[in-house]
Amino acid sequence: MNERILVLGGDGYLGWPTAMHLSQRGARVGVADNGSKRAWERELGVEPLIAIPSLAARISAWEEVCGRSIELFEGDLTEADFVHATLESFRPDTIIHYGEQPSAPYSMIDVRHAAFTQSNNVVGTLNVLFAMRDLVPDSHLVKLGTMGEYGTPDIDIEEGYLAVDHNGRSHTFLYPKTPGSMYHLSKVHDSHNIHFACRVWGLRATDLNQGVVYGIETEQTALDPRLVTSFHYDEVFGTALNRFCVQAVAGQPITVYGRGGQTRGYLNIRDTLACVALAVDHPAPRGEMRVFNQFTETFTVRELAERVRAAASQLGIEATVVHAENPRFEAEEHYYNPKHSGLLELGLQPHLLSQELIDTMLQRIIDHRSNIRPESLVMNVRWTPELATGVASRP
Amino acid sequence: MNERILVLGGDGYLGWPTAMHLSQRGARVGVADNGSKRAWERELGVEPLIAIPSLAARISAWEEVCGRSIELFEGDLTEADFVHATLESFRPDTIIHYGEQPSAPYSMIDVRHAAFTQSNNVVGTLNVLFAMRDLVPDSHLVKLGTMGEYGTPDIDIEEGYLAVDHNGRSHTFLYPKTPGSMYHLSKVHDSHNIHFACRVWGLRATDLNQGVVYGIETEQTALDPRLVTSFHYDEVFGTALNRFCVQAVAGQPITVYGRGGQTRGYLNIRDTLACVALAVDHPAPRGEMRVFNQFTETFTVRELAERVRAAASQLGIEATVVHAENPRFEAEEHYYNPKHSGLLELGLQPHLLSQELIDTMLQRIIDHRSNIRPESLVMNVRWTPELATGVASRP
Repeated sequence: MNERILVLGGDGYLGWPTAMHLSQRGARVGVADNGSKRAWERELGVEPLIAIPSLAARISAWEEVCGRSIELFEGDLTEADFVHATLESFRPDTIIHYGEQPSAPYSMIDVRHAAFTQSNNVVGTLNVLFAMRDLVPDSHLVKLGTMGEYGTPDIDIEEGYLAVDHNGRSHTFLYPKTPGSMYHLSKVHDSHNIHFACRVWGLRATDLNQGVVYGIETEQTALDPRLVTSFHYDEVFGTALNRFCVQAVAGQPITVYGRGGQTRGYLNIRDTLACVALAVDHPAPRGEMRVFNQFTETFTVRELAERVRAAASQLGIEATVVHAENPRFEAEEHYYNPKHSGLLELGLQPHLLSQELIDTMLQRIIDHRSNIRPESLVMNVRWTPELATGVASRP
Repeated sequence: MNERILVLGGDGYLGWPTAMHLSQRGARVGVADNGSKRAWERELGVEPLIAIPSLAARISAWEEVCGRSIELFEGDLTEADFVHATLESFRPDTIIHYGEQPSAPYSMIDVRHAAFTQSNNVVGTLNVLFAMRDLVPDSHLVKLGTMGEYGTPDIDIEEGYLAVDHNGRSHTFLYPKTPGSMYHLSKVHDSHNIHFACRVWGLRATDLNQGVVYGIETEQTALDPRLVTSFHYDEVFGTALNRFCVQAVAGQPITVYGRGGQTRGYLNIRDTLACVALAVDHPAPRGEMRVFNQFTETFTVRELAERVRAAASQLGIEATVVHAENPRFEAEEHYYNPKHSGLLELGLQPHLLSQELIDTMLQRIIDHRSNIRPESLVMNVRWTPELATGVASRP
């Protein structure tokens, strides 16, 4: 098989496991990254739970363990020349695009972080779209979006498009989005730009609106300790379930923001790899931006916290669940019925959240508990600073 | 009256007449600009029909003619410090934001122009929103958007929001947009960001989705030749009616792109000033992004061309209308029913397009015909380069 797959953001939590997964399946895989994520970690003074070797070192380890090489392109996606040269050299059949600033709290730190997040993500994606148009117009872009683009509307969330009847006529639109942070907004901007590139230039793309990912281990990271992926538990880069498990192991209260009725889609990191592989194997037709909602089940934040508390208790760790002031601006009780049939129809076999999975995560965290830095669990990024709270009220 | 109004992009086609109009009405007016538009003109080798004095010289002339001063802030909106310092010093009650790269063809030149347009426009607006939040949260943002954000859906275009009934439930969304260029996309991104700032920070904003503006003269520009505004007829910065009038005077064919059934909203530059003043006088409530569709009537491109041809003929100028290959990607026959009642309800008295107005424009252009550079009428910016035409077809 000579399929060429380029993973943008190949040093990340999901990018690196994706690169290994597709490499093991037989594709010729390239990864592009400029180490931005590691720079943002240094800026904020946070670290993944388990130290990860450099991307080059992980690529060497992968070749040693699996006998397959991964090509490395070091550079910044916001530099059009780098993106052009990478696509010209690698000529991918598929481009999997994780290469963005991925954190909502990071984007809300201040005006500079907001502007950086939006220009970094939007310009990087524009550079990819133009280079595809000019060099590999038949290649398939698999772009990671987020379920957070939709917000929490009072009607069902469809997969990407919404058919509207209005005054006796009808039209199908991109599903209208009400995103909840400067980061989520950047993904909405990307979706509009990708839609344009498909409509006007005839490119093909799959926009994966992913839920919250949890988990530390994939089939490939488990092969060798050097193949570990970046697992965050800090307030800025960590996600709900991962953070809760670390809080429990650290002997800290599990912090639910506000009332905890916030409902979101979640999925296991192994299912992320499976979903992306399904999208790769079934490319969108030319001229179409296909959209999948990529998650396997929904939970409220307080349900998740309770499940972690119960699992920890079985392991002899007694944690408490506390309701902390919500630093975000979001509805804390709301209707939520997002559709997610597209990937199931392509054959996805979900790994649902089990007590066993939480146990495995807790056990892995216990093995590295000496690395936990409790001060990074709470970092006080606020959506609404004091000055602006006069009028805004919880939705 | 001590009302303070800050006009961003105060050196532009609409920014400068707006500043004079509001100054004459009695407001204390500041203008911010960094001369970007003049730099883009130099880059492309195009010029306004009538040479315009520097912004500082026009401000001096205005003071001489009208006895009122306008404060000048020279700087770049993409620099957060400049925006912060300007708002801190001027403390506007209203901010009128024209300060963006305003051309669809400019944004489609290549990847660099696309990325520049989006990052310039989006980052500038983010800097304004954050500075408002932190310094003047009660001030009112009047932001210029464009009717081109909507595209040409098969249902009625409402004013900014769309109430959707779906599976037995209902929700009101920002009206979903299908913009037609990298520039139009930048305005859609802005609208999402402004909507966020109103929802989450409780700011107040009016998003004016403006149609195509025509006209050379306003009540204030007519007071003195030095108060002239920037009038473009080139392919990149010129708009349809203005270009057609110059083509006729230059003895060139009036070029309709494609079949010419493209229908758009239009308005007289005097009505732009009236609409903006109405928005200023009736601010949106805190927490709301109010949206108006700002145009007075709709025309197909071929109707406009025919009206210019007929008016020119009356003046003894025999022009022909030709259908040129459409460099853009757009539907050339389509349903179009955009609502525009909001500004009428606030009291707008439209100046509809008359033969007399076209005559006045033609006469003014004839006075400056020696300045016309026919080579800038056709500059060959293409939406779809050859390489990508394999699949994309006219919508």
